[in-house]
Amino acid sequence: MNRETDISFGQALLAPRSIALVGASGDVRKNTARPLRFMRKHGYTGQIYPINAARNEILGERAYAALDALPEPVDHVFVMIPGDQVLPLLAPCAAAGARVVTIYSDGFAEAGPEGQARQDGLIEQARRHGLRVLGPNSIGSANLHTGGIISVNAAFEADDLVAGDISLVSQSGSMMGSLLSRAAARGFGFASSVSVGNESDISVGEVVDALVDDPHTRVILLFLETLRKAPVLAAALRRARAAGKPVVAYKLGRSEQGDALAQSHTGAMAGNDAAVDAFFRAHGVMRVQCLETLFEIVPLVSRYGDAQVRASQPPRVAVITTTGGGAATVVDNLGMRGLVAAAPPAAFVAHMAGRGLRIRETPVIDLTLAASSAQYKDLLEQLLLADWCDAVLSVIGSSAQFHPDLAVNPLVQAHKPDDKPVAAFLAPEAPASLALLRQHGIAAFRTPEACADALAVLFQRSPATAVVDDRPYDWPDAVPRHGVLTEHEAGEVFESLGIPVAPCVVIQPRDPSHGIAYPVVAKVSSRDLMHKTDAGAVRVGIQDATQLHAAISAMLDNVRQHAPQARVEGILVQAMEDKLLELILGYRNDPLVGPIVVLGAGGIAAELSPDVAIRLAPVDLDSAHAMIEAVRATRLIRGFRGLPRGDCDALASAIVAFSRLALARDVQVAEAEINPLFVRARGVVAVDGLMRLA
Amino acid sequence: MNRETDISFGQALLAPRSIALVGASGDVRKNTARPLRFMRKHGYTGQIYPINAARNEILGERAYAALDALPEPVDHVFVMIPGDQVLPLLAPCAAAGARVVTIYSDGFAEAGPEGQARQDGLIEQARRHGLRVLGPNSIGSANLHTGGIISVNAAFEADDLVAGDISLVSQSGSMMGSLLSRAAARGFGFASSVSVGNESDISVGEVVDALVDDPHTRVILLFLETLRKAPVLAAALRRARAAGKPVVAYKLGRSEQGDALAQSHTGAMAGNDAAVDAFFRAHGVMRVQCLETLFEIVPLVSRYGDAQVRASQPPRVAVITTTGGGAATVVDNLGMRGLVAAAPPAAFVAHMAGRGLRIRETPVIDLTLAASSAQYKDLLEQLLLADWCDAVLSVIGSSAQFHPDLAVNPLVQAHKPDDKPVAAFLAPEAPASLALLRQHGIAAFRTPEACADALAVLFQRSPATAVVDDRPYDWPDAVPRHGVLTEHEAGEVFESLGIPVAPCVVIQPRDPSHGIAYPVVAKVSSRDLMHKTDAGAVRVGIQDATQLHAAISAMLDNVRQHAPQARVEGILVQAMEDKLLELILGYRNDPLVGPIVVLGAGGIAAELSPDVAIRLAPVDLDSAHAMIEAVRATRLIRGFRGLPRGDCDALASAIVAFSRLALARDVQVAEAEINPLFVRARGVVAVDGLMRLA
Repeated sequence: MNRETDISFGQALLAPRSIALVGASGDVRKNTARPLRFMRKHGYTGQIYPINAARNEILGERAYAALDALPEPVDHVFVMIPGDQVLPLLAPCAAAGARVVTIYSDGFAEAGPEGQARQDGLIEQARRHGLRVLGPNSIGSANLHTGGIISVNAAFEADDLVAGDISLVSQSGSMMGSLLSRAAARGFGFASSVSVGNESDISVGEVVDALVDDPHTRVILLFLETLRKAPVLAAALRRARAAGKPVVAYKLGRSEQGDALAQSHTGAMAGNDAAVDAFFRAHGVMRVQCLETLFEIVPLVSRYGDAQVRASQPPRVAVITTTGGGAATVVDNLGMRGLVAAAPPAAFVAHMAGRGLRIRETPVIDLTLAASSAQYKDLLEQLLLADWCDAVLSVIGSSAQFHPDLAVNPLVQAHKPDDKPVAAFLAPEAPASLALLRQHGIAAFRTPEACADALAVLFQRSPATAVVDDRPYDWPDAVPRHGVLTEHEAGEVFESLGIPVAPCVVIQPRDPSHGIAYPVVAKVSSRDLMHKTDAGAVRVGIQDATQLHAAISAMLDNVRQHAPQARVEGILVQAMEDKLLELILGYRNDPLVGPIVVLGAGGIAAELSPDVAIRLAPVDLDSAHAMIEAVRATRLIRGFRGLPRGDCDALASAIVAFSRLALARDVQVAEAEINPLFVRARGVVAVDGLMRLA
Repeated sequence: MNRETDISFGQALLAPRSIALVGASGDVRKNTARPLRFMRKHGYTGQIYPINAARNEILGERAYAALDALPEPVDHVFVMIPGDQVLPLLAPCAAAGARVVTIYSDGFAEAGPEGQARQDGLIEQARRHGLRVLGPNSIGSANLHTGGIISVNAAFEADDLVAGDISLVSQSGSMMGSLLSRAAARGFGFASSVSVGNESDISVGEVVDALVDDPHTRVILLFLETLRKAPVLAAALRRARAAGKPVVAYKLGRSEQGDALAQSHTGAMAGNDAAVDAFFRAHGVMRVQCLETLFEIVPLVSRYGDAQVRASQPPRVAVITTTGGGAATVVDNLGMRGLVAAAPPAAFVAHMAGRGLRIRETPVIDLTLAASSAQYKDLLEQLLLADWCDAVLSVIGSSAQFHPDLAVNPLVQAHKPDDKPVAAFLAPEAPASLALLRQHGIAAFRTPEACADALAVLFQRSPATAVVDDRPYDWPDAVPRHGVLTEHEAGEVFESLGIPVAPCVVIQPRDPSHGIAYPVVAKVSSRDLMHKTDAGAVRVGIQDATQLHAAISAMLDNVRQHAPQARVEGILVQAMEDKLLELILGYRNDPLVGPIVVLGAGGIAAELSPDVAIRLAPVDLDSAHAMIEAVRATRLIRGFRGLPRGDCDALASAIVAFSRLALARDVQVAEAEINPLFVRARGVVAVDGLMRLA
C-alpha cells in the first residue's frame, strides 16, 4: 500500500480524511463503541474503518479484521486495545498509510517504570516508521467542524455540541469533557479539542503548532498539569503570537500541594510553578486563576488579546452599573488583582452632562435611577473614547434577569473600538442575558471572581518578547568548564560578564599576606563547601593581621569538624563592602522551562515570605527593571519613606549580564547564585557566589 | 385606635399579620405597584391596605386615603412616597398600631449631610412614637413562608420562589435580589430576606436577632459592605450561636479599593477590613471569599457548622474522584487555602482491600476504572469513619453530566455521621446532579474555587469564644486619664498590666545622673512628639556620661528644629536591651468593631508586606498564642532553621495583658502601641511605647 502523503501532520492530527478504529466494539455499553457512534451522530463525512478481528460488522457498519485488510489508505488510526498489544500494530499502521496514531490504551509511562520502558520502545518504533503518536493514555481528540470525534470521551454524547473557533488542548482527559460541557452550556463553540495523554511524542507544543495552522481555530485554550518539551511549546507559542491567535492557560500547581499532585499524576519531573509562570509571561500566554475564566475570557482575548490594548499601570477600569452592590463585588476583586476602578474626572462628568446625563465622580458610575437605554449606550460609547480608562465594565442588575433584551441592548448596539476592552458581569442569575451577550461576541461573566480574573490577565499580558542580546558568552579560559566552581572562580565568571565583584584574593594559611585594606572578610575556599556559613567557614569584620590569623585557624578547625572530606584550596580574603540593600540573584536551568533568572530579597526574613521575580533567561533591560519592581524589598531603595535610593540601573544591568549565563558557549550552567548581591547608592557588588556546571 | 401589641418586634418585622402600603400605585409599570402584586402572587394571607390619597381602588383592591382611614390596626407600614413627605407620616403610623415602618424612600443619609439631618430627625420622631424603622433607602423585606413581600425588588417577580430555611440580610438592596435569584436557580429555598438600607434604626444586628427567633430560619446569610452597630450585632451573633444557627458572611472590602468603595457607597465611617475579620472570627461568623459560596455552603454549615467538627491543623480532606484532573483543580485551591488533601495510610488501603476495593496511597483516591456504585458508597462510609481525615470530598466527572442518579447515589445513600463534613464538586456542567444533591441536603459546588472556599471557612470557624478575663483594669493613679501620654507614663501603664518595661528614668538636661548601667538609650520625653525617631529625638548605644551629654544637646537641637512647639519634659534614659526578635503590639478602639489588639512584625521591612494578626480585645491566652502563630516573622523564634527560640509564653502573656486596656475602668484608651516589643530567650520587654486616651 503506497500513497503520496498529501496532507500535513496537522491535518492528519486534526482533520483526517479517513480514520481506522482498532479495537472498536459493537457493544454500545462499551467505551470502545463510542467513536463510531459519535462520528455518525456528529456527521463525520470521511471514511471510518472499524477494525475488529472477531466481527465483520459493527453497529451496522462493515468491520475489518485488520489494518492490512482496508481497501484504501487511512490518515489516522485510533487504538483502543490492551496496552501490551499496541507495539505490533505500528508496522501495519505505517503500511496502511497513517501519519498519526492516537493511542487510548493505558499501561505505559503513567503505570510506572515498566510502562515507561514499554512506552520508550513504542516511540522508538513509531519514529522508525515515520508515525506520530498521540498518547498513549489519551482519551483522544475531536474536530467539531468535521465531526471527526476520535475519542471515547463521554462529553461527545451530548446532542448540542456547537462548532466554533475555540480549540482546547488538555493534559487531563476527563477535564477535556468537563470544560467542553461547561463551555457548550454557555454557547461557546469549539473547533478542535485534543487530550494529549502521556505526551510520549506529540506534546502540547505540537498540537498548538497544528492549531496555529488550523483555519477554524481563533483562540487556543490549554488545561495543563505540567509542562513538557518547553522548547517545542515555545516555538509554537511564537507562531501563535505571530498569527494573532491568543493562548489562554489554566494550569494546576499554584499551591505546593497542587504542584506535587500534578507532577505525581502525570509522572513529570518535579518543577516549579513560578518558573512556568515566567515561561507563560515570556510567551504571552494568559494564565487564568478561575477554572471558568478559561472560556469566559474568550470574547475578550479574541477581540482585544492580540491588538495591543492601551494600559497604564495599574490598568484603569471604568465601571458602570445599575447595581452598586453587584459592581462592588467585582471592584473588590479587581483591587485584589491590582486593577483600579477609575472615577470619571470632572471634565468627563461635564462632558456627559452636556449630553444630558448626570453622573458623579465616583469609582462606580451608578445609573440606577437615571438613564434610558439610549443614554446607557451613549455613556458606553463615550467611555470607550475616553483617555482616562483602559477598559469598560458594565455590571448589570435585575434587568439581566427579567428583560434580557433591554439589559444587553446598549452593550450590543454601542460602537466598540478594537483598542479598548469592554466586558459585562451579570449580578443575578441571568442565563438568557449571558447567552445574548455570547451571541454578540461580548465577554460576559457569571461570577465577580472570574470577571476580575479575566480583566487582570488580559492586562498582564506582556508585549511580544523584546529583542534580547543573544550573542554567545565566551567562558573565561581560566575557569573550569565542569563541576562545582569555587567562590573565586565563580567571581571570575561574574566579572567577565560585567558584574562588579568585591575585591578579593585567595591566600594560603601559611602566607596570609593579601594587600586588601582592612577591615576584611575571610572565607575558606573549597568547591566541596556549598554552604560556607553553615560550616563556620566565614568571618566578617576582621580588623588586622592578628585577627585574620586567628580567624583562619578557627575556620579551618570548623571545616575539619563540619566537613572533613572538603578539600581546602586556600583562604579567600575580601574587602568589606557597604550596602543599602542585600539581594539574591539566582540562575537555574529549570527542568521544565530551561534557563531562568531569579531576583530575590536577601537575608533570613525573606525566607519567611517569598519575595522573588522570575524570568526566562536571557532577559532584556526592560524585563530586568520589571523584575526589580516586582520584588517588594527593592522598595527600600526606591524612595520608600525617604530612605536613600539604590542604583537600580546598575542592578538591572547586573541582572541582564547574569542572565547571559544561558548563552555560555560550550558550557552548561546548572545553577548559579550571587548571594548576597549588595546594592549601593552607586553600583552593585557581588559579595559571595556559587556556581555548578553540568 | 388602641390595641394591645400582642406580637413581638421580630414578628412585626418578619411576619406581620397586616401591612399598609403607603404610596402604592395602580400603574403596574411602577415599582410602587409591586408589593401588592407580589403578595397576591405569592399568597400572602394577611391583610393588605394600599394607601393612596388619589384613588380608592388599586389593582382591583380597595385603597384607603390615609392610615387613619383603616378599619383596623396594622403591624407593619411600607412607605414608598418621596423622602421629604415621610416625617409627617410617623405619627399616623404609630396611631395605626404599627410597630415597624419600612421606608423605601430615599434622600436621607445616603444623599449627603442634609439627608443625614433629615434622617436623624426622622429617627428621633420614630423613637418618640415607639416605632422601629427599617431603612430609609431600603428595598424592603420578604418572607417566603407567609408570602409577605414588603418589597419593590424585581427578584420577587419570579414565579419559582421556593420557601426554605435560609434567611438573608443584605446591606445592598440590588444584591438581595441577585443572590435570591442565583440561589433559587439552584433550588435553595429562603425563609426571610431583608434589605437594611441606611440602617438608621434597625441594623443588621437587630435583623439577625429577629431571625434567631424566627422558626423558619436555620442558616443566616449576610451580604455586607461595612459594619454598623457592632455591639448589637455581636449580641445577636452570640444568640445565633447559642441557638445553633450558623451565620455566613460575604463582605466587600478585602481590597483597599473595595473597602473605600463600600465605605463611600454606604456613607459609613472609614474602617479596617482586617478588624472586621477579627470581629467575625470572635463571633464564629464564616466569611466566604467567593460570591456563590455564600449559598452553596449552606448544606455544609447547616449540618456541620454548629457541631464541633474534628479538625487537625491543617485540616485534612480525603478526596475521591472519577476525574483526576477535576479533583486536582479543587486540591490546588485547597492547598492555597491551607487545607491538605490527605493520602490514605497503608492501613486504610489494606482495610479497603479487605473489603474488595483496591486504592492507592495517593492524595487523590482515583476510582476511574474500578468501583461499582456500591463500592463507591462503601468507600465513602469507611472514609467517614476513618481517623486520618477531617472531611470527605467527592469530585464527580462525566457521570454527573449524563447519569445524575448514578453519580449522586453513593453520596445520597451512604451513612453520613454528623461530625465529619462531606461535600461534592461536579467537574462538568451538571445541573441535574447539582439539583439532586441539593434535594438531599448534600453540599455540591459548581466551581473548584467555591468548593475550596467553603471547606476552608468551615474549618476556620473558631470554637465558641473562650472565657476571657474581663475583670476591670484599674488605671494607675500616677498616670493621666486623658490626652497623650509620655513614653514614661505609657510604660507605667504597661508595667501595671504586668508587661516588663526596659528600666528607665527621666532626667533633666541639667542633671544627667540616672543610675542605669551603660550602654544606654536616650530619648526626648515629650507628649507632643509621637514619632521620636523621625524627630531625631532618640540615640542608642551611648557608652558613657560624656556621650550622653553630647547626645542630649544634639537631640534637643533636633527637636527645636523639627518640632519647635513640642514641650520637652525631660530626657528618658533607658537600659540597652538585647533581643531575638522585634515585634509591634498595638491596641485601637476601632471605629467599626471597637477595641482590638494587633500583633505585628517590627522593623521597616515589615512595612513592605503586611504581617499582622488582629483580634478583638480582650483576648484569652489561646487566642494570643494563635496570634503569635499567625505572624510570619515569629517563625524566626519558633525553631526556624535552628535559630534560638524566643519566649512565646511570655509573649502570649504580654498580649493578653496588653489587650486588657479594653477593660480600663473610667478611662477610654483610643490607641496604644508598644514598638518595639523585644522577645528574648526568656521573657519579653517593652522598649518604647505610646498611648492616646480619649
